[in-house]
Amino acid sequence: PDAAASETARRRHLRLTKPPGSLGGLEELGIRLAGMAGACPPPVPGRPAVLVAAGDHGVLGRGVSPWPQEVTAEMVRNFCRGGAAVNALAATVGARVLVLDVGVAAGTEPHPLLRKARVRPGTADLSRGAAMDRREAARAALAGAEAAEELVREGTDLLVTGDMGIGNTTPAACLVAAFTGRPAAEVTGRGTGIDDATLALKVRVVEEALALHGPNPEDPLGTLAAVGGLEHAALAGAILYCAARRVPVVLDGISSCAAALAAAALSPPSSGYMVAGHLSAEPGAAVALKALGLKPLLDLGMRLGEGTGGLLAVPLVRAAARVLSEMATFEEAGVSEG
Amino acid sequence: PDAAASETARRRHLRLTKPPGSLGGLEELGIRLAGMAGACPPPVPGRPAVLVAAGDHGVLGRGVSPWPQEVTAEMVRNFCRGGAAVNALAATVGARVLVLDVGVAAGTEPHPLLRKARVRPGTADLSRGAAMDRREAARAALAGAEAAEELVREGTDLLVTGDMGIGNTTPAACLVAAFTGRPAAEVTGRGTGIDDATLALKVRVVEEALALHGPNPEDPLGTLAAVGGLEHAALAGAILYCAARRVPVVLDGISSCAAALAAAALSPPSSGYMVAGHLSAEPGAAVALKALGLKPLLDLGMRLGEGTGGLLAVPLVRAAARVLSEMATFEEAGVSEG
Repeated sequence: PDAAASETARRRHLRLTKPPGSLGGLEELGIRLAGMAGACPPPVPGRPAVLVAAGDHGVLGRGVSPWPQEVTAEMVRNFCRGGAAVNALAATVGARVLVLDVGVAAGTEPHPLLRKARVRPGTADLSRGAAMDRREAARAALAGAEAAEELVREGTDLLVTGDMGIGNTTPAACLVAAFTGRPAAEVTGRGTGIDDATLALKVRVVEEALALHGPNPEDPLGTLAAVGGLEHAALAGAILYCAARRVPVVLDGISSCAAALAAAALSPPSSGYMVAGHLSAEPGAAVALKALGLKPLLDLGMRLGEGTGGLLAVPLVRAAARVLSEMATFEEAGVSEG
Repeated sequence: PDAAASETARRRHLRLTKPPGSLGGLEELGIRLAGMAGACPPPVPGRPAVLVAAGDHGVLGRGVSPWPQEVTAEMVRNFCRGGAAVNALAATVGARVLVLDVGVAAGTEPHPLLRKARVRPGTADLSRGAAMDRREAARAALAGAEAAEELVREGTDLLVTGDMGIGNTTPAACLVAAFTGRPAAEVTGRGTGIDDATLALKVRVVEEALALHGPNPEDPLGTLAAVGGLEHAALAGAILYCAARRVPVVLDGISSCAAALAAAALSPPSSGYMVAGHLSAEPGAAVALKALGLKPLLDLGMRLGEGTGGLLAVPLVRAAARVLSEMATFEEAGVSEG
């Protein structure tokens, strides 16, 4: 990001017709958007998109979720038909939906909203071996970058990251633990809403995976391969592509945050293009956002994924940019000052 | 609100293709919207509007704000010309803007976005006598209801309350203290951003006003007259009109919350049609929302008023309604359950 453009935005906020600082977090966001765009006022995003990366997880065999694996493929079909939460929220904020199959075990049917880049039919059980090999992690990341490239080429000026994958909060917790150094118990949560016994098992599985692999946060690709998911790798690639193109990325919940940690480890400046859409109820999200230095815009106790929490923040991003371009200054409006 | 429609929405949320409860506060909001509409799914608001009630305050003479009184009229002109924060945020969410002059001391020029119902040229100093008499408070409330009536007649299906009035966080604090019984120091804040000395003076002024009038919360009109503002009375009237018409009302900051307390005191069921758009940085807002039993949707540290924080919540209201009408159930989508 461009510090001079951010500074211009900061100074402009002092001249707009409102008490200084009275728009709170919206001012801070506008200042960041100016830095991302390298211009003040920053452009108002007009064509947002949500990229929902989908994959399956061998660790599901350990019993970390009560939901059956076929739900991943069933939900991908639901996304394509427009019946999921991500569709309703994307329609609310005028966002395009693109689904990326990077490894749905049951396979997916062709659809105009779906891109297939199936690296493998789901990961292996990360608690007993590597989830995938480094080449597979790299291929998934590249598939995410290619999906983002298609979107940006076709006009997307704000990307929301989304995920689908039954069992994917377990690799997400592993990634957050690996990249932040926090213990499993602190970053592992109830996902879709598991009971106490399943949560205890899930924490143990994360601990076992961390003990087995000893993932090195300075080797982000190796960490993704050892304890990550295909959709996490794909979202990391999408985030890196957007950051390189100066397109702001709105993060959704725990899987997006885990992918963002991987992206920031691969390229630290990429965090400058990330916006934390919301604070997921999943505890690892708060840990990840703190490590990334990001403050979430919304906190509605959501824990669905799919990009839903990120989509709800799109109007806030638009509003933050819009006040910088459309509000009059005290001089322009002939308004006295306090 | 209609408890049966809310219960239908609650049950429907358990059948939609997502883990139960995973949309958090958005589910709770949708359940409330169904109750307001008396139907599940509730309609998705397509024509929101923000009503910005403007008035001046005799208590400004006590030095409670560094901003000069003429700023109220200057900002009304800024609203009409489209240069204020409320205009940028209304445009972002597709809301109509209507400004209501219920007592701008310097007067206002005619404009298509402006309605004039000037009850008096600002209130008297509430720390030394009644801000206005009961008839004036009633006339201001009626002017607010009439403005809301015009909006609803012309299609508004979601009202955001907004305010403009230099010095108006002092009467707002008085109203919150009067209706909740909390002490002045707990509900009085920095408004536009006053320094410690001015805040101490402001707390004393609120204490003096409460001691002078001993406002009775069971006499809401008398309380508005003694320690309120013309815009607070107007917004209370607008809220009551919308509640009677089952139109949801999104509250903005401290002045809207103070008006909402008056409305709820006049008609307790009206709180069932209120949505807390955001948590203002002004401390009285949290106190008022708690008394109203409302959880704020956003918390961005905003303290501008004008309806800005309420407008930012409009997409959340739309999203909450939309998931209930557009999402598929497990059966419809052929998705397995956990």
